[in-house]
Amino acid sequence: MTTALRIGVAGLGTVGAALVAILEDRRSLLTSICGRPIEVRAVTARNRDKDRGIDLSGAQWFDNALDLAQDGDIDVFVELIGGEGDPAHSAIRTALQRGLHVVTANKALLARHGLELAGLAERQGVILNYEAAVAGGIPVIKTLRESLSGNRVGRVFGILNGTCNYILTRMENEGISFADCLEDAQRLGYAEADPTFDIEGNDTAHKLAILTSLAFGTEMAADEIYLEGISNISQDDIRAAADLGYRIKLLGVAQRTESGIEQRVHPTMVPLDSTIAQVDGVTNAVAIESDVVGELLLTGPGAGGEATASAVMGDLADIAKSRSGNQQAPAFGQPVTSLQPYRRARMRSHEGGYFIRMTVEDRAGVFASIASRMAENAISLESIVQKPKTHSTEIRPQTVILVTHETTEASIRTAIAAIEAEGYLTGAAQVIRIERPKHT
Amino acid sequence: MTTALRIGVAGLGTVGAALVAILEDRRSLLTSICGRPIEVRAVTARNRDKDRGIDLSGAQWFDNALDLAQDGDIDVFVELIGGEGDPAHSAIRTALQRGLHVVTANKALLARHGLELAGLAERQGVILNYEAAVAGGIPVIKTLRESLSGNRVGRVFGILNGTCNYILTRMENEGISFADCLEDAQRLGYAEADPTFDIEGNDTAHKLAILTSLAFGTEMAADEIYLEGISNISQDDIRAAADLGYRIKLLGVAQRTESGIEQRVHPTMVPLDSTIAQVDGVTNAVAIESDVVGELLLTGPGAGGEATASAVMGDLADIAKSRSGNQQAPAFGQPVTSLQPYRRARMRSHEGGYFIRMTVEDRAGVFASIASRMAENAISLESIVQKPKTHSTEIRPQTVILVTHETTEASIRTAIAAIEAEGYLTGAAQVIRIERPKHT
Repeated sequence: MTTALRIGVAGLGTVGAALVAILEDRRSLLTSICGRPIEVRAVTARNRDKDRGIDLSGAQWFDNALDLAQDGDIDVFVELIGGEGDPAHSAIRTALQRGLHVVTANKALLARHGLELAGLAERQGVILNYEAAVAGGIPVIKTLRESLSGNRVGRVFGILNGTCNYILTRMENEGISFADCLEDAQRLGYAEADPTFDIEGNDTAHKLAILTSLAFGTEMAADEIYLEGISNISQDDIRAAADLGYRIKLLGVAQRTESGIEQRVHPTMVPLDSTIAQVDGVTNAVAIESDVVGELLLTGPGAGGEATASAVMGDLADIAKSRSGNQQAPAFGQPVTSLQPYRRARMRSHEGGYFIRMTVEDRAGVFASIASRMAENAISLESIVQKPKTHSTEIRPQTVILVTHETTEASIRTAIAAIEAEGYLTGAAQVIRIERPKHT
Repeated sequence: MTTALRIGVAGLGTVGAALVAILEDRRSLLTSICGRPIEVRAVTARNRDKDRGIDLSGAQWFDNALDLAQDGDIDVFVELIGGEGDPAHSAIRTALQRGLHVVTANKALLARHGLELAGLAERQGVILNYEAAVAGGIPVIKTLRESLSGNRVGRVFGILNGTCNYILTRMENEGISFADCLEDAQRLGYAEADPTFDIEGNDTAHKLAILTSLAFGTEMAADEIYLEGISNISQDDIRAAADLGYRIKLLGVAQRTESGIEQRVHPTMVPLDSTIAQVDGVTNAVAIESDVVGELLLTGPGAGGEATASAVMGDLADIAKSRSGNQQAPAFGQPVTSLQPYRRARMRSHEGGYFIRMTVEDRAGVFASIASRMAENAISLESIVQKPKTHSTEIRPQTVILVTHETTEASIRTAIAAIEAEGYLTGAAQVIRIERPKHT
């Protein structure tokens, strides 16, 4: 006789409903894989009467997540409510305190309270799994936490937000503006009514904070991430990038440097012939560069009810298989007490190439001045393009595009400030960082 | 006090030596991750006196793998000898019978004896891990076995042999012949002195057999794989592929069809703008298309001492963490007795697009004849290119290149046979299958 793994699902939106449907549909396959069935014994959602096309007759209904966590007749609490605060936070805490395993897809919550919850799980000897929280269906948590055990990661970076990648892909393919793309994405359901969280990079930052902790064995530091969204990216940038052999992606990047760990989210130029440059639309990708294995690139669906439910299902299967219940694999790879304090590398010390696009007045000496300001800051240039603005006005502004060799953020900022002080720019300089994958 | 995980390493070649070095170098990190140290307590290799640059003073030396498996004071037997037969086979069997966990990188052995060994591991309640056996450092075994639990895979395919991909990449980039590339690859250590096993696809086939069993939950069927190597690929094919928007890769493909499961290894045209087409040199890649999660693509180093050792280290860490020793995760995802018999889909019923390159005599009616033979077999054409051979001789042979829409292997074979019977071909027709990734 085998004992079922009894789960309670909090949240029956796209992901929750997909999960319940799939667990039912794959019952015998999962039983064979896990050695015992996985059964949905309790659920909660905002609206009890909504038809979700799933059979909930075998599950006890709870009015809220906290009650489910507290009183559900379950082994695992599955949190699919979202939001960094309550009720998700207190419900998970309650579940862990009760000695339940927890599976969550909630990146905002983990970025904020991940260490507290992981510590609690460790003390209780239960499992906290969260594969679905980062990059949806891509098994990046498992790869970092298990497959790369003993590797020292140098850099992890990725396309972690499908909405931004969808918009950038369409801007490039169709030549339409950011605003038009966003509107279309909202109409098609690829962007929220309030898209700020996605397009300004906050969602990417939450996921990056989790990856950083896992990859570098450090405490979570979601508030110490340099953040720049994509709302400022124009067709001029997209076209100039393509001309120079680059494509613009919103990347989250965490990198070990001599002065600490950089965490940054910003629009990034990646070489056109790199594999990550080929990742289009709502697809996500995560590159991991580590010292033993080399470079891995994992690509797949970053969102969507089924892809996310698949990751939750994998987490549940792992719990069902580890029947002893002895939690030997800490949530963030190492016991929370072994994680190193996060030491932030200041953005000013970031080293890399830069793309700089400026619109300047067409008068003598401007180009020489720009070149001098760059030289004064020891910035050497890979390429320089100067051309008339397409719609030239009376003062005939010109576009100047520079691509620098490797330099520092501090040098770039000083140089740009000096150029701006000269008074010949007709608008703010656009600065986009370049990121080069190690291989391909 | 924590009890160390004691391992015995059989084989101290590139992978074995790298593993021992890394386990020593990462001792404290791994102890923190696993909750206990991993210690090399016993070793064996062909030559005891060779300087491998590693400290073996703490390990007992055995004269052969079988003795190590039988008498080593260890918890895990790590097999890095290679070869589908003895001593690897009997040593692993002995270790499992003794109740030791086993980690192996040996694809040839698993493709042949995987089910027998997995069954033995199950009965003994021990773990059989083999992440390093397929695609080196890429965590494809863990992804299929754990992350995709409950998914139903439709197709898995990949670049699984670095030697072939290296040769094809150089042929394309440098315009040099297969023979010259192979010679260079041998000189640089990317190809064996006897390269047959790699270039004729056998190595890819072994890896594919393992992936098939994991992906589809079927018994292993390494002998039922359609096999075609790359030695027949010429610059004419590479250039024609590029002209038509394709790139040639040696793929291993396993696909669920109505009549069973196709397993095939052959040179394949993939669309130039697909992500897998960007995978260059010795890098490997595996695409997994499954019904819940959608498409995943995992890219990384497929060989090399350190990358392979990294995968072995991940396997060891998993064993070290599962301290209860209760093996709940069967080697091939499900208990061996739950695996379905492999039902082979015949190659003749394969459906797909085809590239066909023929050199024909330049006389009236040839083109019409080819078109008729295609039409008679209900093969519709996506594109047709006819051009003079570069080095034309007296009879001025012409090259005819066809790309078909989706059709069957049987139709193609019948049509080609009919064309060959006409007598105007000046050599054998070159036929290359086209494979289209679902997304991107």
